[in-house]
Amino acid sequence: MISETHLIHLLKTQFPSHIGDDAAVIPFTDTSSYVITQDILVEDIHFRLASQDIKSLAHKALHVNLSDIAAMGATPRYVLMGLSIPSDATEVSAFLKAFSKACKEVNVTLIGGDTTRSPNPWFISITVIGIAPTEHLKYRSTARPGDSLCLIGKLGYAHLGFTALEQEVTGLKLFKQAFHSPKACLDAGLWLGKQKAVHAMMDTSDGLYIDLKRLCEASQVSATIELTALPLSSTFLKACKHLNLDPIHTALTGGEDYGLLFTVEANHSFIEAYTPHVIGKISHGSGVKFTQNHTPKALKLTPFSHFE
Amino acid sequence: MISETHLIHLLKTQFPSHIGDDAAVIPFTDTSSYVITQDILVEDIHFRLASQDIKSLAHKALHVNLSDIAAMGATPRYVLMGLSIPSDATEVSAFLKAFSKACKEVNVTLIGGDTTRSPNPWFISITVIGIAPTEHLKYRSTARPGDSLCLIGKLGYAHLGFTALEQEVTGLKLFKQAFHSPKACLDAGLWLGKQKAVHAMMDTSDGLYIDLKRLCEASQVSATIELTALPLSSTFLKACKHLNLDPIHTALTGGEDYGLLFTVEANHSFIEAYTPHVIGKISHGSGVKFTQNHTPKALKLTPFSHFE
Repeated sequence: MISETHLIHLLKTQFPSHIGDDAAVIPFTDTSSYVITQDILVEDIHFRLASQDIKSLAHKALHVNLSDIAAMGATPRYVLMGLSIPSDATEVSAFLKAFSKACKEVNVTLIGGDTTRSPNPWFISITVIGIAPTEHLKYRSTARPGDSLCLIGKLGYAHLGFTALEQEVTGLKLFKQAFHSPKACLDAGLWLGKQKAVHAMMDTSDGLYIDLKRLCEASQVSATIELTALPLSSTFLKACKHLNLDPIHTALTGGEDYGLLFTVEANHSFIEAYTPHVIGKISHGSGVKFTQNHTPKALKLTPFSHFE
Repeated sequence: MISETHLIHLLKTQFPSHIGDDAAVIPFTDTSSYVITQDILVEDIHFRLASQDIKSLAHKALHVNLSDIAAMGATPRYVLMGLSIPSDATEVSAFLKAFSKACKEVNVTLIGGDTTRSPNPWFISITVIGIAPTEHLKYRSTARPGDSLCLIGKLGYAHLGFTALEQEVTGLKLFKQAFHSPKACLDAGLWLGKQKAVHAMMDTSDGLYIDLKRLCEASQVSATIELTALPLSSTFLKACKHLNLDPIHTALTGGEDYGLLFTVEANHSFIEAYTPHVIGKISHGSGVKFTQNHTPKALKLTPFSHFE
């Protein structure tokens, strides 16, 4: 059985130059660059048509890609849509209408793609191209020891929604919506891109712990998360209890939140509109560690995985 | 049951600006442009793992996209690879190795993509980005009445291979190879891009008849194919007989040949290295017509479709 980690390892063997930021950068003008990202959603791996409204699916297919563009500090501009659907699919028109609406909302133009039949599952492969002044681009590999570790967005909300849906638990609409209709942090990403004090950035798509591990590896630094600093709302804690999930574990490993994780010069003051959660710090060394009230705390974490 | 034509119609309703050249054009420098294309291959729709070698599949996944870049008169530069595969897939490493080799052969760099699990079929979504001097770009919409209609590449070879494979007919290796390992006409496309006398261009991926129909619609012209001018080799005619296929019908409707179809100023002389087949002419009006020895000939054609 092949895992995603194994796949990425195989990719690195064949394509050593393939680095792995949220989006690839290619030249545009002397002072600006294109960024380009491609994300796939597969039925029964990333979504279930039985429980997800087709409109939210179209919205999500776009926004998981927009999130990568936001994480680079760029503005999305163009989209290519690849769609493989079974011959008896009934909601194609509704999907395209919702995708068109989602594109218009963020001023993104469909410029191409491919549509084919599929023997069974829906496959949605979206490519988004964005633009940014080259000096505003943010990467995973540029975190510096001494930086504060910051977060914009929710933690674990999508995973709670996902769990409630899989266990057919009624209610918990807020969390189901977080899973079905994530919204990329475009404005925040663009604003953070302009801040010189922000050194490294990525989105939280696979879970805070695993994403941060990747950022640390890319930057050759270590990170320490202060567990009491994690933004865990009372609504979140209540929902965790309801679903019998550990709040800390869920916040650290739940995927698909599509927030922004970034590092910033220590003691930097943000404007009020964008006050991120400072959840830890960056140091020399390697790996992700935890403290509780500034005392080291060992945690055994199992990263999030999609529908098995 | 939804057809590809219906899908394209739905797309045009939602995205009226979506024009449909082989690749989309986005700005690069003052004098050059990027072209970008995305093509999907789905197991049991476009290929069968039982009959196709994994190395040729990787090669084909790249070249069907390169063909779109060639048809624009551009040079391929970057690629993004989206891959969804079942957990028990055994040949992933061989696929990636072959894909890497195919990229190196044409000097294309992998810059990103996405890899996920699939509940069953292999799903390959490739995005290729090319570059061209803007004045060399060729489109479907710029054919002119009076132009000669020209072709570089084989006709119907891939369809013969496809048919032989589906009917489990032994032999006919040349044709099976044409289906499994098409090679994009990169050099020819680049050279044709530089010729001012070449007015319109596209690749032949869905069959000469249907592709030419699209070119005529885009350019608001009509085309007449002289049937005796179609390049039908004795090997091709023999194989058609063997498979009980009509040669003219196969040459006009067989898909996946990935040649180049273009229109050029009448009586233009090509250099010897690129002597295309002149197969007809462009006129005012609409639609695709046929002549045999310059006498009008009515044909009833059923366009090619992938595995049903």
